[in-house]
Amino acid sequence: MKFEVTILGSSSATPVYNRNPTSQLLNCNEKFYLIDCGEGTQQQLIKFNFKANKIDFIFISHLHGDHYFGLIGLLSSLHLNGRIKPMKIFGPQALQEILELQFKHSETILRYPLEFYQTTADESRNIFENADLVVSTVILNHRIPCTGFKFTQKKRMRKLVVEKLEADGVGVEYYPLLKRGADLKLPGGQVFLNKDYTTDSDAPKSYAYCSDTLFDERYFKSIENCDLLYHESTFLHELLERANQTHHTTALQAAQVATITNARKLLIGHFSSRYKALLPLLEEAESVFPNTDLALEGNTYQI
Amino acid sequence: MKFEVTILGSSSATPVYNRNPTSQLLNCNEKFYLIDCGEGTQQQLIKFNFKANKIDFIFISHLHGDHYFGLIGLLSSLHLNGRIKPMKIFGPQALQEILELQFKHSETILRYPLEFYQTTADESRNIFENADLVVSTVILNHRIPCTGFKFTQKKRMRKLVVEKLEADGVGVEYYPLLKRGADLKLPGGQVFLNKDYTTDSDAPKSYAYCSDTLFDERYFKSIENCDLLYHESTFLHELLERANQTHHTTALQAAQVATITNARKLLIGHFSSRYKALLPLLEEAESVFPNTDLALEGNTYQI
Repeated sequence: MKFEVTILGSSSATPVYNRNPTSQLLNCNEKFYLIDCGEGTQQQLIKFNFKANKIDFIFISHLHGDHYFGLIGLLSSLHLNGRIKPMKIFGPQALQEILELQFKHSETILRYPLEFYQTTADESRNIFENADLVVSTVILNHRIPCTGFKFTQKKRMRKLVVEKLEADGVGVEYYPLLKRGADLKLPGGQVFLNKDYTTDSDAPKSYAYCSDTLFDERYFKSIENCDLLYHESTFLHELLERANQTHHTTALQAAQVATITNARKLLIGHFSSRYKALLPLLEEAESVFPNTDLALEGNTYQI
Repeated sequence: MKFEVTILGSSSATPVYNRNPTSQLLNCNEKFYLIDCGEGTQQQLIKFNFKANKIDFIFISHLHGDHYFGLIGLLSSLHLNGRIKPMKIFGPQALQEILELQFKHSETILRYPLEFYQTTADESRNIFENADLVVSTVILNHRIPCTGFKFTQKKRMRKLVVEKLEADGVGVEYYPLLKRGADLKLPGGQVFLNKDYTTDSDAPKSYAYCSDTLFDERYFKSIENCDLLYHESTFLHELLERANQTHHTTALQAAQVATITNARKLLIGHFSSRYKALLPLLEEAESVFPNTDLALEGNTYQI
């Protein structure tokens, strides 16, 4: 099952050096989840040959413009391009008011339902669940209310050893039971033990998205043991004071978060416009947490 | 004196084929006027190596998103990049409410003054004037209230024939008087006739921006005799019915407007996403009005 994230924007605050403001596209089992939506996200989707209409879920972390100014344009274009299926949006309460005010003045009545789910920045909770994954909020510490998101795969069914099932003449009607882990006792008395015909499913994986935030141990528990941790790294550690003032994190701190929370891999992004070259940020993080990558636009990272 | 317009976006409705939604940058005597501001305009300014902070005036024609969704991001970036000088914005009343709601929820207090000037779509009027030009509204006929803009240079000062002035020993303190057209009678009785020491200034030029609109003779009078007329040409004339339904214009109609209003040159843009190739639109317009150009992004057109 696919579980991967593609970076659409990696810049903080303003677009610069051909880097766009924050947006990411999560693919879990060919369902698509957009995480934040800075200005120009719809153009980035076109650039990377992705059909925006495949997205059914949008998660907005907070109402700083570099994380959502592209949302109204994306939603409008989906309308103009004929979308009819619903779009679920998870984000701060005022987001709905902001979008509706703009639709009102353009006299736009969307052809598709927009379903709002309000996030709150008080405590971490599950906000969405389907057959593939569970999404929970991560309570970050930023200048305005801000939630990260954790995407955790559900426990998958056991894998069938089809060759052996076929060789022993087990009917396909019994496969679903075996997948769920049951032993088979047929009416005629024949017994097929689950352990002989299935293997373990892949362990469920998880992806946490943390942007924007001060280094604050209060959110560490909610992102423990992630397979991939995206963490903002706006500054080099030499600008720690600036990071603290603006409620952002340094690359070194992001690596510390990855270490403390036992992440398997770290992805850093939300780069300040002062850094044209990103290698120093990567090297700083790697000095603490070697398994680190830069969030580069157009790149896809496996979870 | 420079008087030219650079196309930043030429697409209608949605970005497509690397064409951005509508925006134009007018340079009149090294003062910069932004006309409409579709999503991604700030990225386009970067792409074409223009410093956004040079812009002091923004004109928004109407509140369809493809004409203003980039404004909030541009204004935010100017704030983050340290702008302190005022920005004048001319547009529909609700624009102020839309911007202020978003600044409120991002807890942004702009470092620079934002001065709003409300446009109304009832009758054409002068809305701005400085030493270089006068800006008036053009009342268009669109699905929601929409104004175009006409930028008319002011009558310039007469040009000095400096060599002759110097040869005849006329002091530089008299130059301003001569530029304004006066004859000089010095206290000693000496006379210098203006016609001997100056030549005519260039004729004032004008640029009209018409987007979006139905073909409607009611606005023709307010754009008469333009040196450069930008007119939307969303469709080919074979889609006239669609143009009428959506209150847009065909390339043929745009050329008819240019003919009827005695424009010197026509610039067509706001191309529908159905047209990957733009040549048919150009050819259709040229069949009626030969002096036509396509509004191509990054291109600068002299007025």
